[in-house]
Amino acid sequence: MTGTGAILNPQEIEAKSFEIIDAEVGPHGYDRRQWPVVRRIIHTTADFDFARITRFSAGAIEAGVAALRRGEKILCDTNMVKAGVNKTGLAGFGCQLDCHVADPEVARAARAEGITRSIVATRKGVAEGCGIYLIGNAPTALFELLRLAEEGSVSPSLVVGVPVGFVGAAESKEALLASGLPHISCQGRKGGSAIAATILNALMILAREA
Amino acid sequence: MTGTGAILNPQEIEAKSFEIIDAEVGPHGYDRRQWPVVRRIIHTTADFDFARITRFSAGAIEAGVAALRRGEKILCDTNMVKAGVNKTGLAGFGCQLDCHVADPEVARAARAEGITRSIVATRKGVAEGCGIYLIGNAPTALFELLRLAEEGSVSPSLVVGVPVGFVGAAESKEALLASGLPHISCQGRKGGSAIAATILNALMILAREA
Repeated sequence: MTGTGAILNPQEIEAKSFEIIDAEVGPHGYDRRQWPVVRRIIHTTADFDFARITRFSAGAIEAGVAALRRGEKILCDTNMVKAGVNKTGLAGFGCQLDCHVADPEVARAARAEGITRSIVATRKGVAEGCGIYLIGNAPTALFELLRLAEEGSVSPSLVVGVPVGFVGAAESKEALLASGLPHISCQGRKGGSAIAATILNALMILAREA
Repeated sequence: MTGTGAILNPQEIEAKSFEIIDAEVGPHGYDRRQWPVVRRIIHTTADFDFARITRFSAGAIEAGVAALRRGEKILCDTNMVKAGVNKTGLAGFGCQLDCHVADPEVARAARAEGITRSIVATRKGVAEGCGIYLIGNAPTALFELLRLAEEGSVSPSLVVGVPVGFVGAAESKEALLASGLPHISCQGRKGGSAIAATILNALMILAREA
């Protein structure tokens, strides 16, 4: 009835999971730095579509690794993304991790302007000089970040843009692709907070390697 | 470039998303109380597999609704699940929401016993009298809960058991099915923290209805 079998060590479980994913995916088009990110997304979701839909701009991994090593400030669009980031890992880089969507003054400003809290929270993160943007939920956060970049108000080191959903999510990711900003994203409707967090966690592992 | 179109109101976005999901899923085998839960999972993941793999024990919705209305204590296996639960909604029911996996004394006990922190955190939640269990990540948490139920140490009002992954996750959900405990779950490897949270959020909406 315990049913957990002989394997209990989390490192062993992860290694075994990665073996299964490698074997089931087979040949793929990702390079040796991209694949650990894609594999970790599949590990988080058990969804093999990500071996097909995950996208990297040229040099995105290197851009993310460099930003982590510089200790850049990170903005999350939801507290679920923030909760999913490995805090112990992040402390080693000295990066601050913020999410403003639940701040009372953000809610007040959103009501006053008749816009989403996600838009106001994005503006706040930009004003505070964040370099890495993790967007796992809100297309409006990603659209606002792209607007601010286009007007020259921000030049993100990396955009992890994986909003999920049926209205605006796919479109926001196509706009990210067209923007030319350094990004890790995915095509279509899928995405989510856990995926945004897991991409940063994968980048931290790469940044700790030589 | 803003690209968000005419729709910006979150309620309108949700209603439109639900329309799209209803249309694309078509006929399904869920009843009128189960479908809002399944639909919300698809809304959270954009993964239509959940229209096929989501499972409810008989009376699971009613059990969850009753437990919420009684203000029962809720245990989450990860802080991502906790972050994803609608706190404003929960406050209306007077339910306390706990997650012990990051507690320092849980880590110490896990090291001392050579077991996972998830097992120790589950024991702590049971000892504190939790009635609803949200397990989105750790198969060992679900196996431990089933073991404690089998030995008569706990009689959960509802188990939301949707651990994700390649080692133990599917097996833990089959064991949940076999246990006879009131549960909402899904078949196979898929699942995750966002799904566990969204199931509780859907139950809260049902519990507020007549």
